[in-house]
Amino acid sequence: MSQDATNQAEAVLAAIRFDANGLVPAVAQQHDSGEVLMLAWMNRAAVAETLATGRVCYFSRSRNALWRKGETSGQLQQLRELRVDCDGDTLLLLVDQAGVACHTGRRSCFYRAAREGALVEIAAPLVSPEALYGPGHSHG
Amino acid sequence: MSQDATNQAEAVLAAIRFDANGLVPAVAQQHDSGEVLMLAWMNRAAVAETLATGRVCYFSRSRNALWRKGETSGQLQQLRELRVDCDGDTLLLLVDQAGVACHTGRRSCFYRAAREGALVEIAAPLVSPEALYGPGHSHG
Repeated sequence: MSQDATNQAEAVLAAIRFDANGLVPAVAQQHDSGEVLMLAWMNRAAVAETLATGRVCYFSRSRNALWRKGETSGQLQQLRELRVDCDGDTLLLLVDQAGVACHTGRRSCFYRAAREGALVEIAAPLVSPEALYGPGHSHG
Repeated sequence: MSQDATNQAEAVLAAIRFDANGLVPAVAQQHDSGEVLMLAWMNRAAVAETLATGRVCYFSRSRNALWRKGETSGQLQQLRELRVDCDGDTLLLLVDQAGVACHTGRRSCFYRAAREGALVEIAAPLVSPEALYGPGHSHG
């Protein structure tokens, strides 16, 4: 992360209200279809890197580290536009998602719907998690 | 909130991983246009009430109380479908938004976009906040 990239992002970063843990939720939406793909979290460094590179980088709360989406799985998210909400405490990322966003192999993480009191699966995996991560691996 | 309504929501509530504060982020998306309108938070009671009534009810962190969207402003959100993500820690609400979702009078809260290092407004208010809340009032 160069100082230049951070400086370029400064006006955007200044508008974001990071929470007590230094994080802000980011909603990823496929830019053309409008499909909501996932929600993850970003810290200042993740926002700055995403703006600088055009490839979406989150912050993994479980791994406590930057999470370059697709680094392991190849399922990259190219940023088309970053938007900030009225209160500055949520981001909307318009992205171009390669392949699938969900670690289960589904296009979107929101594949379970509440229907008639039950939770039903409304989308099937397009690819197996093993094909994305190899056996024994997790998110990426 | 009747016991029946809570019981009906039990299967859905069981799949949701509320955070340490008993909350889960909920993304509201206009069901037909795909526009992402806002992100707010829900607790168990808010989810149960929303499923029971079909009118979206959030939990206001600033007021520490249930927030029946549109109760003050009239800008109701009718629930079309509630979806749960893979990890159970985010909700997607497909809604039919009456009027505007944002307390600034804009259709969506995400009206600022990062473009060429600056944050620019990409949508104008459709109605004045005073018309929504009267002078001196806040969100609703």
